[in-house]
Amino acid sequence: MKSRGYNFGAGPAGLPEPILLEAQGELLNWQEKGMSILEIGHRTPDFVELLTEARQMLRELLNVPDNYQVLFLGSPARAQFSMLPMNLLSHNQQAGFLITGIWSSLAFAECQKIRRGYAVASSEANGFTDIPSPLEWKLEDNTRYIHYASNETINGVAFAEPPCFGDIPLVVDMTSSLLSEPLNVSDYGVIFAGAQKNIAPAGLTLVIIREDLLADDLEFNLPTMLDYHTHIKHDSLYATLPTFNCYMAYKMFNWIKEQGGVEKLHEINLAKANKLYEFIDNSEMYHCKVVKSARSLMNVCFNLARPELEAEFLTQSAEQGLLALKGHRTVGGLRASLYNSMPMAGVDALIDFMQDFANSNPL
Amino acid sequence: MKSRGYNFGAGPAGLPEPILLEAQGELLNWQEKGMSILEIGHRTPDFVELLTEARQMLRELLNVPDNYQVLFLGSPARAQFSMLPMNLLSHNQQAGFLITGIWSSLAFAECQKIRRGYAVASSEANGFTDIPSPLEWKLEDNTRYIHYASNETINGVAFAEPPCFGDIPLVVDMTSSLLSEPLNVSDYGVIFAGAQKNIAPAGLTLVIIREDLLADDLEFNLPTMLDYHTHIKHDSLYATLPTFNCYMAYKMFNWIKEQGGVEKLHEINLAKANKLYEFIDNSEMYHCKVVKSARSLMNVCFNLARPELEAEFLTQSAEQGLLALKGHRTVGGLRASLYNSMPMAGVDALIDFMQDFANSNPL
Repeated sequence: MKSRGYNFGAGPAGLPEPILLEAQGELLNWQEKGMSILEIGHRTPDFVELLTEARQMLRELLNVPDNYQVLFLGSPARAQFSMLPMNLLSHNQQAGFLITGIWSSLAFAECQKIRRGYAVASSEANGFTDIPSPLEWKLEDNTRYIHYASNETINGVAFAEPPCFGDIPLVVDMTSSLLSEPLNVSDYGVIFAGAQKNIAPAGLTLVIIREDLLADDLEFNLPTMLDYHTHIKHDSLYATLPTFNCYMAYKMFNWIKEQGGVEKLHEINLAKANKLYEFIDNSEMYHCKVVKSARSLMNVCFNLARPELEAEFLTQSAEQGLLALKGHRTVGGLRASLYNSMPMAGVDALIDFMQDFANSNPL
Repeated sequence: MKSRGYNFGAGPAGLPEPILLEAQGELLNWQEKGMSILEIGHRTPDFVELLTEARQMLRELLNVPDNYQVLFLGSPARAQFSMLPMNLLSHNQQAGFLITGIWSSLAFAECQKIRRGYAVASSEANGFTDIPSPLEWKLEDNTRYIHYASNETINGVAFAEPPCFGDIPLVVDMTSSLLSEPLNVSDYGVIFAGAQKNIAPAGLTLVIIREDLLADDLEFNLPTMLDYHTHIKHDSLYATLPTFNCYMAYKMFNWIKEQGGVEKLHEINLAKANKLYEFIDNSEMYHCKVVKSARSLMNVCFNLARPELEAEFLTQSAEQGLLALKGHRTVGGLRASLYNSMPMAGVDALIDFMQDFANSNPL
């Protein structure tokens, strides 16, 4: 393929082309410092300045209150599944989980493996096509926090609003939604997100954590790298950071600001997803299993009325530069991920293709 | 600085320019796949093929025997300081540490924090300017393994040969030496290395581990991400890998092969370091505290006879494109890191500058 296609992959995902062009232009000599950003020491004044500005820019984009710490961690988001219970739960406490897909299920299993956790509610029985109603929630004693995933990439299910549990803090996995919509940070105790959707290339995780949640005297001896105190104390520079990913995140934060911030991007994201869902709902060939109130803006999952045509759909779409539309291996079907970097033109091209494909393959 | 300088930083460190040029050229559209390597899914056939080839290439470069697993992990090397004791030590076992600098000291402290460890010997009393002689080693009972760092970046101290403890396996931190010299993998139980010196940009750690060292029935419930079994079972693809770093590592492995492999690079590295040490030893202005038998080929640490001139040395050298020569903040002085990517021309330029500087600043 001589030119770039539209990348509908669920993550690692597409990045805005202007950012890629900037990175390309300065890849051998960053800001005329005589070396690449790939080669610069993480404790040099130049890099520390970049990291400081990136942190500040993220705070501005999301209006992060002063009593929250913002961490840049060089490990996959999945490491948070153990770090959260290890840092937040004492011997007599447990975490409650709202289970709406694979990611919240895995976080629940990890908590049960190393500390105590229970399911507040689960939509597994209906194939993760809905969000459990508050009427189904079952809270247990000594619940230190509630963990949930704002958006589940595999089934394309999302919370329209954060669930409300009164004084019990929310811990939210926003790997696939952070920076795609406005949010009120104060609604949460901890927000975390792997970078590889709306933030930066894979290899970085952001954590926004309310300071009072961290005990000064943990009952357990945690591995130093898994202790949030370590990273707070060292301004995320305890170990060698993935410097390039931080640099790309900083570029992304600037790009988001230029687009008009998360409010403006949310408008666009709403318009993109609505257009595609509307097309699907009005077609005979395509259908989406997720109930309307729980549909993800980021990952539009759908199936063909003639599932035997899936491979052909994928081949033909890829030939037209509509890339990575295959659904997750655990659920099959098709999936169009519409992160911040996907322009409306990509959605239009996809819909045009889907219409043509439906016309060429009558039911 | 309009052109690239010579980067003497200790890590993240310089990369060979041909690799940077390749990455730059294909940064928007990797192998005409219509997307950047920064945007590709880690479970796509294209990326899995890249990772498989990278792993195979590393095995070839180091002649890794079949009974060793090779892991690509998306976390800093420092995470190994806890993973190793957590995976290898049962309740009644301990690890012995040969302490020759900051990195082995930190690994020792981490082991003591979460399991049991002791110092076999330490060169701290002489300021980490030597390697402890086997005559000083004190072995305790139930020693499961011996941990040491082949090269300590901060004081510029290295083991010329691996220490020999008979049947007790060696665990070696080769963050700053892996792929800079030949080695006999069978001499070790575990070899690990952060990527940011001789392998790839910061954000990746390689682990080479002898399979029989991993217990099938760990006594502890480890966090899943810290359990080597997880990463072995999933071919390093359990969580989202830092895809770009793997891609750069693969390019580096190819570059090393093109240079003639680790044997040839070792010859060049010996010549580079010897030339610089010889100049230092023959000068009045410069001196190196490390005893000759323990000098690092990768990090040449030195001091000025007139330490008040250090800042001026750094300013003038940087103006000439000789970059990042400042010693580590904990020890001061100056340091020239001579990883694989540093050409002899860089060493020559440094020596020329050092000679001029000495001439201009008589004692």
